[in-house]
Amino acid sequence: MKIYDFTLAPNPRRLRIFVAEKGLKIPYEQVDIFTGKNRTPEMLAKNPAGGLPLLELDDGSHLAESVAICRYLEALHPEPNLMGKDSREQAVIEMWNRRIELGLFAAAGRAFQHTNELFKGRLKQFPEYGATQHEAATQQLQWLDEQIGNKPFIAGDRFTIADITAEVAVDFGTQMAGLKLDPALKNLARWHKAVSSRPSAKA
Amino acid sequence: MKIYDFTLAPNPRRLRIFVAEKGLKIPYEQVDIFTGKNRTPEMLAKNPAGGLPLLELDDGSHLAESVAICRYLEALHPEPNLMGKDSREQAVIEMWNRRIELGLFAAAGRAFQHTNELFKGRLKQFPEYGATQHEAATQQLQWLDEQIGNKPFIAGDRFTIADITAEVAVDFGTQMAGLKLDPALKNLARWHKAVSSRPSAKA
Repeated sequence: MKIYDFTLAPNPRRLRIFVAEKGLKIPYEQVDIFTGKNRTPEMLAKNPAGGLPLLELDDGSHLAESVAICRYLEALHPEPNLMGKDSREQAVIEMWNRRIELGLFAAAGRAFQHTNELFKGRLKQFPEYGATQHEAATQQLQWLDEQIGNKPFIAGDRFTIADITAEVAVDFGTQMAGLKLDPALKNLARWHKAVSSRPSAKA
Repeated sequence: MKIYDFTLAPNPRRLRIFVAEKGLKIPYEQVDIFTGKNRTPEMLAKNPAGGLPLLELDDGSHLAESVAICRYLEALHPEPNLMGKDSREQAVIEMWNRRIELGLFAAAGRAFQHTNELFKGRLKQFPEYGATQHEAATQQLQWLDEQIGNKPFIAGDRFTIADITAEVAVDFGTQMAGLKLDPALKNLARWHKAVSSRPSAKA
């Protein structure tokens, strides 16, 4: 197995944190998205959607989409469990993972793409639209603070893939999309400090 | 069990088709998104994210997010299998489901939201941005035609949740977001005719 990775992009980081939490040693190979190395004919033959991360299996086949790769690794290496121990818990964790991904993570991504210099020339930017997405992401942070409440983690009492998605979304949003972590959002701040102190946060 | 549903919205249709393919009889209760009935205090207590569909379990608890609900129903009613029989197949189907959801389905949704009269006053519309999303969705249809190739279905040789997401995305995109199904995309047209002729398509 190996993983095609790009350390500066948020979706590959989701998988790296997952792999680190599992304690797995899988080799990484860097593919530079900024210079289009993910869209060479060779890479598109491996993943016609062109995205990263990408898992290469020992039989030469490939799996794309970070969450799909995580689910495959979870089946091969069930412990520590990150995606649910029974069908009910699996559904609750998937619900939370999707809420974060389609809410905070997606809004932060669109804010970044439509306002950041890095995306000039890569797509037609609409900075005013980007500003609405920045505002939407900020509202998602407030909502997440309410939803975390007194829970230790996003989906309940233990660290799961939903925390990984939220951690990557918050770090990406604050580092790349101009989001601020308001200290008044005490639940979110406490949760962020806890996940950031795990060794996997450096992945 | 019951399902809070809204027949005019695409995500609830994903679940209705899934339920129909499983042959399940679960009662539906309509919640009108257009008049904000999904965001009453009573409904937000059931689903703080405010979206539909929403599954109510017999113990009074709730599960949100269409794909999470589908996965839970798949565990309760494994046949006919719609999400993969082993970990490898599950990952491949999830990969395809996500590619369609984050590509075609999301782009069609943004085209709709930023160009359709229905969304005037519901969000700040950027019609020029909507046009870029219409173009992106059109490109996704071309890509999907290539990817289907000679395969009977999106993820391989049988109907899965990835076909449901694609079917809903295509129907929603053509009916609500101005997408056209180009007859020159013969693989896509053949696939769309096949999935549309299933009884579940009426769900």
